[in-house]
Amino acid sequence: MTTRRKFLTRSVVGSAAAGIAVVGAPAVAQSNPVIKWRCVSSFPKNLDMLYGCAPAMAKVVAEVTDNKFQIQVFAAGEVVPGLQAFDAVSNKSVEMCHTAAYYYAGKDPAFALATHAPFLLNTRQQTAWAFRGEGKELLDSFFEKYNVVGIPGGNTTTQMGGWFRKEIKTLADLKGLKFRISGLGGQVLAKLGVVAQQIGAADIYPSLERGIIDAAEFNGPYDDEKLGLYKVAPHYYYPGFWDGTSLQHFFIGSEAWNAIPKHYQAAIRSAAAYANIDCIAQYDALNPPALRRLVGQGVKLHQFPNTIIDAAYTESMKLYDELSASNPGFKKIYDSQKAFQKDSVLWNQVSEYAYDTAINRQLRR
Amino acid sequence: MTTRRKFLTRSVVGSAAAGIAVVGAPAVAQSNPVIKWRCVSSFPKNLDMLYGCAPAMAKVVAEVTDNKFQIQVFAAGEVVPGLQAFDAVSNKSVEMCHTAAYYYAGKDPAFALATHAPFLLNTRQQTAWAFRGEGKELLDSFFEKYNVVGIPGGNTTTQMGGWFRKEIKTLADLKGLKFRISGLGGQVLAKLGVVAQQIGAADIYPSLERGIIDAAEFNGPYDDEKLGLYKVAPHYYYPGFWDGTSLQHFFIGSEAWNAIPKHYQAAIRSAAAYANIDCIAQYDALNPPALRRLVGQGVKLHQFPNTIIDAAYTESMKLYDELSASNPGFKKIYDSQKAFQKDSVLWNQVSEYAYDTAINRQLRR
Repeated sequence: MTTRRKFLTRSVVGSAAAGIAVVGAPAVAQSNPVIKWRCVSSFPKNLDMLYGCAPAMAKVVAEVTDNKFQIQVFAAGEVVPGLQAFDAVSNKSVEMCHTAAYYYAGKDPAFALATHAPFLLNTRQQTAWAFRGEGKELLDSFFEKYNVVGIPGGNTTTQMGGWFRKEIKTLADLKGLKFRISGLGGQVLAKLGVVAQQIGAADIYPSLERGIIDAAEFNGPYDDEKLGLYKVAPHYYYPGFWDGTSLQHFFIGSEAWNAIPKHYQAAIRSAAAYANIDCIAQYDALNPPALRRLVGQGVKLHQFPNTIIDAAYTESMKLYDELSASNPGFKKIYDSQKAFQKDSVLWNQVSEYAYDTAINRQLRR
Repeated sequence: MTTRRKFLTRSVVGSAAAGIAVVGAPAVAQSNPVIKWRCVSSFPKNLDMLYGCAPAMAKVVAEVTDNKFQIQVFAAGEVVPGLQAFDAVSNKSVEMCHTAAYYYAGKDPAFALATHAPFLLNTRQQTAWAFRGEGKELLDSFFEKYNVVGIPGGNTTTQMGGWFRKEIKTLADLKGLKFRISGLGGQVLAKLGVVAQQIGAADIYPSLERGIIDAAEFNGPYDDEKLGLYKVAPHYYYPGFWDGTSLQHFFIGSEAWNAIPKHYQAAIRSAAAYANIDCIAQYDALNPPALRRLVGQGVKLHQFPNTIIDAAYTESMKLYDELSASNPGFKKIYDSQKAFQKDSVLWNQVSEYAYDTAINRQLRR
């Protein structure tokens, strides 16, 4: 209770100060307090759909609370650097952030599994696992150790495999290839000889142009188009087998979370769900025309050769075995996702995938 | 304003009656009125995930409004028969319903396009089109003619092609086949010689058992399993090419909608988004183990032969041409979906579909 009171003192603008006097029903004043939070995003404003998840969430929270609960969103760098968003929440500098958990895999590789991992769940499966499957409980417990509450909030969906200056035909073409890629995908490709590089978004184009790197993965057509990479690396590969989905999260400090009324917590949860659909719907509505424009600009679409996909799969499974052996927490979450995937793949093969196969066949005829 | 006041008189329980007196801030009393609505569902309670969307929505609305806005949900038949849910809202008998728009295709075939249609959008595409693409505006205008506001709320995703007593190998096997199927899918199959039958869920099992019908489509493994159809029709076909998605809607009477505060409208929109994710996540989490159980019971999974899929596609396109020629409103919505699909299919082929293909390949190896 001390913690709760302390937090309220800091964050709540009292109803008396707002000029509202309530008689005979003190509960009213307490039940709809004016609260102002800060939410730091890991994303710059020019990634409009990804950055946009946090303002979309904040707008809905303000709307449903009749502007009593106001969450101000800050782009990457405005309060803290983008990759420190999670820490800013964990150490109570701000109440909330919007980020991708896998950015924090350096603390624990299990963070990656909250977002995506090579050859694991696709977009619908990751959502189902995190929202309704075992994932919710497992991730809640995992995040609790960092004193945060995690809520799914947006997804960039299956990403592309990236931009390559030259075609990739055999495993030999990967040896020494300087590729801008991070996370578990980078570790897997490193085992195949790739030199994985971490480069900020703004530096990708000049690095590719000058030949400092040979290839770069970023996201999908809509976001990639803005970077102009197709001008210097026209070979656009798919699928991003390390990015079968990319679930984003809102993280809220446990202390801040516990200090707000239950109906404000519910407002955040439902607003995050709204932002999640809105984000996926935007990517699904705007990636297709962006892809068409890129192809119109002369971009060459290539599927990664099966020899590369097979080798990457083998290395991914080895990596999961290694991480599971040394990290029981990772193993617990990984085993749950693997089991979820096993059943889901059969179902997908006779449902959405089979439907898509039928559609693809008709549009080819 | 007259309309609004009249509605408020009927639906709002005044704050004074609730024993709350507010001094100096009349806006407080008006801004969080106690409101009670009725929402009739088209679904029986034993379809727990589908029926469950409405209570899930209502729970969130109650939570975020601190129980001020209460929506009571009634299962099919409790207030009106399931297939009259939309009419009950349109004629102002109740404020809200949860239903599938295609049930009302008898009024106008354009209703079907709000839910699904043979060989059109898949689940992600339908959501994107309805939520962020042209679909939102087109459907808003369409529903407005019936004095309702429509909000997406749940999706049973790509459905199965149904249960057949005997294998279906050629087009000849469809001639005279008595098949429980409705909607545009039924019209398409009728052109291939199928005798389409409309039969309520409870009567499917006895009809199949007694040979009154030869086959029946219902939904997916989780819902189908409950009907026990596998005991009398063991051949389970996929994909349900007439059901590539199945987007459900909440419909709210325009008068009721306009009479509630903006933040209560926002509460419904965000709660519907929450229910939408929750519904899909549940189907995605529970259909896979249900399919495994069914296969364990001896169910035979079959893909529809390509000759049948090709013929059904041709008939579907003819049907769309006929409907478009006679119904400009249908044409407008259909053309928008068709254009959305064209771009989306290429993107799907290099993203989620390509990822799923890679996963399927690895799990077969």
